[in-house]
Amino acid sequence: MKYDVIIVGAGPAGLSAAIYSARGGLKTAIFEKAMIGGQINVTDEVENYPGFEEPLAGFDLTEKMHLQAERFGAEFIEEEITAIGLEGLCKIVETAEGKYRAKSVIICTGAHPRRLNVPGEEQFTGRGVSYCATCDGALYRDKVVAVVGGGDSAIEEGLFLTRFAKKVHVIHRRDSLRAQKIIQERAFKNPKMEFIWDSVVQEIRGEDKVRELEIYNRKTNQITHLPVDGIFIYVGILPNNELLESRLALDSAGFVLTDENMHTNVPGIYAAGDIRHTVLRQVVTATSDGAIAAWSAEKWIIENYDSLED
Amino acid sequence: MKYDVIIVGAGPAGLSAAIYSARGGLKTAIFEKAMIGGQINVTDEVENYPGFEEPLAGFDLTEKMHLQAERFGAEFIEEEITAIGLEGLCKIVETAEGKYRAKSVIICTGAHPRRLNVPGEEQFTGRGVSYCATCDGALYRDKVVAVVGGGDSAIEEGLFLTRFAKKVHVIHRRDSLRAQKIIQERAFKNPKMEFIWDSVVQEIRGEDKVRELEIYNRKTNQITHLPVDGIFIYVGILPNNELLESRLALDSAGFVLTDENMHTNVPGIYAAGDIRHTVLRQVVTATSDGAIAAWSAEKWIIENYDSLED
Repeated sequence: MKYDVIIVGAGPAGLSAAIYSARGGLKTAIFEKAMIGGQINVTDEVENYPGFEEPLAGFDLTEKMHLQAERFGAEFIEEEITAIGLEGLCKIVETAEGKYRAKSVIICTGAHPRRLNVPGEEQFTGRGVSYCATCDGALYRDKVVAVVGGGDSAIEEGLFLTRFAKKVHVIHRRDSLRAQKIIQERAFKNPKMEFIWDSVVQEIRGEDKVRELEIYNRKTNQITHLPVDGIFIYVGILPNNELLESRLALDSAGFVLTDENMHTNVPGIYAAGDIRHTVLRQVVTATSDGAIAAWSAEKWIIENYDSLED
Repeated sequence: MKYDVIIVGAGPAGLSAAIYSARGGLKTAIFEKAMIGGQINVTDEVENYPGFEEPLAGFDLTEKMHLQAERFGAEFIEEEITAIGLEGLCKIVETAEGKYRAKSVIICTGAHPRRLNVPGEEQFTGRGVSYCATCDGALYRDKVVAVVGGGDSAIEEGLFLTRFAKKVHVIHRRDSLRAQKIIQERAFKNPKMEFIWDSVVQEIRGEDKVRELEIYNRKTNQITHLPVDGIFIYVGILPNNELLESRLALDSAGFVLTDENMHTNVPGIYAAGDIRHTVLRQVVTATSDGAIAAWSAEKWIIENYDSLED
């Protein structure tokens, strides 16, 4: 078989899996159709990945991981995977260029936040538009921000933002929240939080950075303009699971279910990082998942193949 | 209350928890009785922590995390904790110097490998004596190594070492292994593995680095000398759980049981890193645990306290 391990996706989870797998002496290929580094590449400043006392750009961090994985011999293949055959002892990964065989596959295809799909959203991503308060909240000290959404994430992250921002406007399309009652109560009591009900953002405007939001009230049909320094969008996160055949167990939102060894329900198939059903999605949790997945794949190969040179 | 979060132990798990907690705006204290950095500080070269394309000393990596946590305002306290009161909404940490109060406590006291307690073991730790093949195996390419132990870890890591070393001697005190049958079969078939039964290492000798082992056969009473470049000791890992009162649920080996949020069975008390019942103990898994624990503690505080300034 050509490879011991094929890793699908070269974000932090995939890169970490490649580092562990290749360093462990396994013949390792890692596929990425777009840019090595994944979603974190669009982040201006990462300051909470442990080990870097100074902030660094998301791209710089993943480039270091890329070089590290290459140093141990991981093979990077820039081809778009069109199908993955998960069954049996020989897993098959197909691209337009050909078929690749491996003993084990680690799925690290990631996820992406659901967008509002309004003008200005893409343009200002990383410059006032954020999908992660844990990542970017500390950059908004004494600023005015808006949070879009009404679920647990939106409200919890809104409360989190009150530690930095001087004002947090919560913009929600309905007239009540979906978040847990206890979280709602805290939010309503917090003097920094303001609620804009029955409303949707229909445009994000600014020059260099976000400056204001155009808000449409669905009940009154009124349009207002809200000056903000940042907007945090929490209307859901979507798994990049297009390639995953129905054989793989997913949760109701489409994320891959694994055990603590990152093992999926299919023997020899592992998942790591944002594609996984998990509690927190950060670079450090993704790299940890990747390390565990590679370590588990290695154990699985030792147990299921006579020698590594099969 | 003086602190929002008190972190017990400043290894990678504690340091990462401090980075996340302090950056999240929580008033954070981190206690360490010995050296900041924990066990990994004795590792000459860390080359598998994702994000560093060149290897670095364990101490240098943890020093970076230390500076990062300080930059966000975590307070480092060099006092030995004598007791931890886990119950109620006010947790109490006691040292010889005084009492410290917090809303939440994160336990990151770590673990340590069981030692053989033979002459030379301490002297050559990091210079031929290792307790982690995943960490140090790649440094023994084409060398001769010994593995001490007969359980799953010893044999799996022995098999792992055959990818680098030209010969792996397994030294075991009994005449059969405790490892799973399938792992045993692989080991017996592997031409690089040799077994030395009924034997114990009674001295580790060398000059700069390990050069040979003095081995005592418990059945024949014979003493032999085995030339090796390295010795990997797998006779168990022990949790640093002396401080943890009986109220905290532990596994049969004494490690703290948590859920995927790092929550223990006691409200507001979290555990992260090597002290936790977990599948893999690496720097990257510990830092991930620490991040999740701090994030969970933050959510717990938001849900249980009226404001952060209580």
